[in-house]
Amino acid sequence: MEYRNFVLKGDICYSKTLNSLVTAENSFLVCTEGKSAGVFSQFSHIPLPYRQFPCIDYTGKLIIPGLVDLHMHAPQFAFRSLGMDMELLEWLETWAFPEEAKYQDTNYALRSYRALVEDLQQGPNTRICLFGTVHVPATLLLMDLLEKSGLVCMVGKVNMDRNSPDTLREEDAARSAASTQVWLEQCGTYKNCKPILTPRFIPSCTDELMRRLSDLQQRYGLPLQSHLSENLREIAWVRELCPESSCYGDAYARFDLFGDRVPTIMAHCVYSESEEIALMQRRGVYVAHCPQSNMNLASGIAPARRYLEAGLSMGLGSDVAGGVHTSIFRAMTDGMGVSKLRRCMGACDEAPLTLEEVFFLGTQGGGSFFGPVGSFEAGYEFDALVMEDPHPVPPFPLTLRERLERIVWCSDERSILRKYVRGIPVPGFSNPVR
Amino acid sequence: MEYRNFVLKGDICYSKTLNSLVTAENSFLVCTEGKSAGVFSQFSHIPLPYRQFPCIDYTGKLIIPGLVDLHMHAPQFAFRSLGMDMELLEWLETWAFPEEAKYQDTNYALRSYRALVEDLQQGPNTRICLFGTVHVPATLLLMDLLEKSGLVCMVGKVNMDRNSPDTLREEDAARSAASTQVWLEQCGTYKNCKPILTPRFIPSCTDELMRRLSDLQQRYGLPLQSHLSENLREIAWVRELCPESSCYGDAYARFDLFGDRVPTIMAHCVYSESEEIALMQRRGVYVAHCPQSNMNLASGIAPARRYLEAGLSMGLGSDVAGGVHTSIFRAMTDGMGVSKLRRCMGACDEAPLTLEEVFFLGTQGGGSFFGPVGSFEAGYEFDALVMEDPHPVPPFPLTLRERLERIVWCSDERSILRKYVRGIPVPGFSNPVR
Repeated sequence: MEYRNFVLKGDICYSKTLNSLVTAENSFLVCTEGKSAGVFSQFSHIPLPYRQFPCIDYTGKLIIPGLVDLHMHAPQFAFRSLGMDMELLEWLETWAFPEEAKYQDTNYALRSYRALVEDLQQGPNTRICLFGTVHVPATLLLMDLLEKSGLVCMVGKVNMDRNSPDTLREEDAARSAASTQVWLEQCGTYKNCKPILTPRFIPSCTDELMRRLSDLQQRYGLPLQSHLSENLREIAWVRELCPESSCYGDAYARFDLFGDRVPTIMAHCVYSESEEIALMQRRGVYVAHCPQSNMNLASGIAPARRYLEAGLSMGLGSDVAGGVHTSIFRAMTDGMGVSKLRRCMGACDEAPLTLEEVFFLGTQGGGSFFGPVGSFEAGYEFDALVMEDPHPVPPFPLTLRERLERIVWCSDERSILRKYVRGIPVPGFSNPVR
Repeated sequence: MEYRNFVLKGDICYSKTLNSLVTAENSFLVCTEGKSAGVFSQFSHIPLPYRQFPCIDYTGKLIIPGLVDLHMHAPQFAFRSLGMDMELLEWLETWAFPEEAKYQDTNYALRSYRALVEDLQQGPNTRICLFGTVHVPATLLLMDLLEKSGLVCMVGKVNMDRNSPDTLREEDAARSAASTQVWLEQCGTYKNCKPILTPRFIPSCTDELMRRLSDLQQRYGLPLQSHLSENLREIAWVRELCPESSCYGDAYARFDLFGDRVPTIMAHCVYSESEEIALMQRRGVYVAHCPQSNMNLASGIAPARRYLEAGLSMGLGSDVAGGVHTSIFRAMTDGMGVSKLRRCMGACDEAPLTLEEVFFLGTQGGGSFFGPVGSFEAGYEFDALVMEDPHPVPPFPLTLRERLERIVWCSDERSILRKYVRGIPVPGFSNPVR
């Protein structure tokens, strides 16, 4: 049975701010019209109008916000884990580009995207920003599948009109922009799956294309996602391609495609320096921190601590298939791990990320790109996971924070009993207690 | 039904050497009296006497050697994943030491070790070297459970008589050695679970204790496991404690407890330098490379490539609970990952580890500590996993090497259909095809 208004009872964890994790055992989380009305430690503390809502009893289970993936490549899911011992360039040429070219065939896209969407439904992420390919039909097909999945997503038809293989490169800026417009006209009716402008990255987009995308951005009021400062060779290349830009980020900013009135996610930012950081901070650009991908593709370790200290908006990204695992729990543990390696390999003044911090980044940090998302504070959209403690449970009592730690490290999709997005259960988790 | 002599048919992968991975599709692996008699591409190539053996048909499944974990702490399994955002010292004081002290209580040990052994049975490792605690009854209990598990293990009662909390430290060298002897007398009858001498590490063992352990080593002909050069502060401490030793490894060697006639595993070796590497090479000391633990405890990244080039014997270790995951597949992927970070953070001349190399390390590399183990070359002990391709399978054909890559990155215990150790099926995997 589905309710618009209900109460969940259980052991509730969520972030209030970057460093403050709320742990409320045996408490009540109220959902009204798809939004949280807050967490209450006793039934009698629930405001009167909500007390008559049906109460679903998950005593002994954990209830946490759904996770948010700010960066992944939908057409790369099919080959995740393959070629992970290659270097970036070899991997792109062997896997990423030839595979993406196949999405011209909608049958191939359907088969492959169906498997992706099923995986995403079963996992812990509730909000996801995805790159598609340059192909309009395949991108619309992905949006169709996601729209029905119960998840809330942003999907981008990719733009690229230079420096890419013939099989993928769009003919010229005009045609790339025109097919983007066709795509935008056709995806206006989705409620859960919204378009996001997606120039692949500066090296694969001509100035002319960037100008046209900027026009489209203004006309449709679109958000934007792209890549920034992922590795040193790429940065040097951008410097060569855009000698008039003061930094890589500025190469987007010149076209008004770098934050400010354009909600913007930049993936990676492994090597952003002071000027770029200041630009991102001033313009409210989001960093999608993708620790696994940055390891797998030998990019390096992003200075996440510096970004937090600079007050940047930041969330986590799986970057499938630079990363292998779609679950943002994995990005949380990888984020903690690489921050320690960064510290002990030279960056002595950068404290490693804590559990509180990576949990914030994987929920509210990335969630805020979607609005009030990723927390259970009153007014937030009701994305929630009901989870079981991973087996075997230790032979000693655990605090709720410790139970959360075990969920983050040891859970998998079998630990998820129920998954809500905007108050609506995601299909496939239909039993109140499985 | 159990056979001593049988043939498995399927898609077979195993290492011949560090860089040569054999991939034999639709082939036949012969087991006779617990040993491999080799892999044959056609039934008619199987030597005559073996052709009448029952043939179990796993067509379409992968058959690979069981994995080998050269380093884990049995009493730390219960709290794995907890405190992973702490620094080493805080973690030891908060978790490792207080938890280990609890194993004086055999009821606690039974409950906790039972959960560990069940986990190990279900996972992909077939051979494991484990640290127990200082407690003789708990260590014997662990060996009882492992003996019946179907796995082949080496287990050490830990020795420590200085620089450790009162709750764990043994009273003096004489009593530590005496209780070690009691333990050795009582574990002589096990067939699958053998004792291994286990001084915790130099800082927690007096010279007097080391001398007595050396005597016991000679009397019983025992192998040895310990820790070496895990982090810089520890190395400085050893230099202070053993001013007469030329390097950390030499502090063991002085007591004849560092290879040569003593089969020896040293865990970590994150900071071993030329002299120590040469000593290990000369004396045949094994490195247990534990990439996840070295990240989680902010130790650093071991120079695995240098060790391979120096011709050291090396295997992989989970180091639970410095590491969180018992599966050596995880150590393989972490090993590839951190080797890339090491390269892009300064060690430009050290090529990252390849899939072939980490697969070798996790099977034959560590397996050779147990004898002819970790390969399917004729004469090797028959440890094998029959595995299913992880779901969802990509919508394009895969080579056998690529399927192995997916197993290494994406499988979990559900992918294991059957598990053999020395030709005998591990309990819990009793259906030929589950």
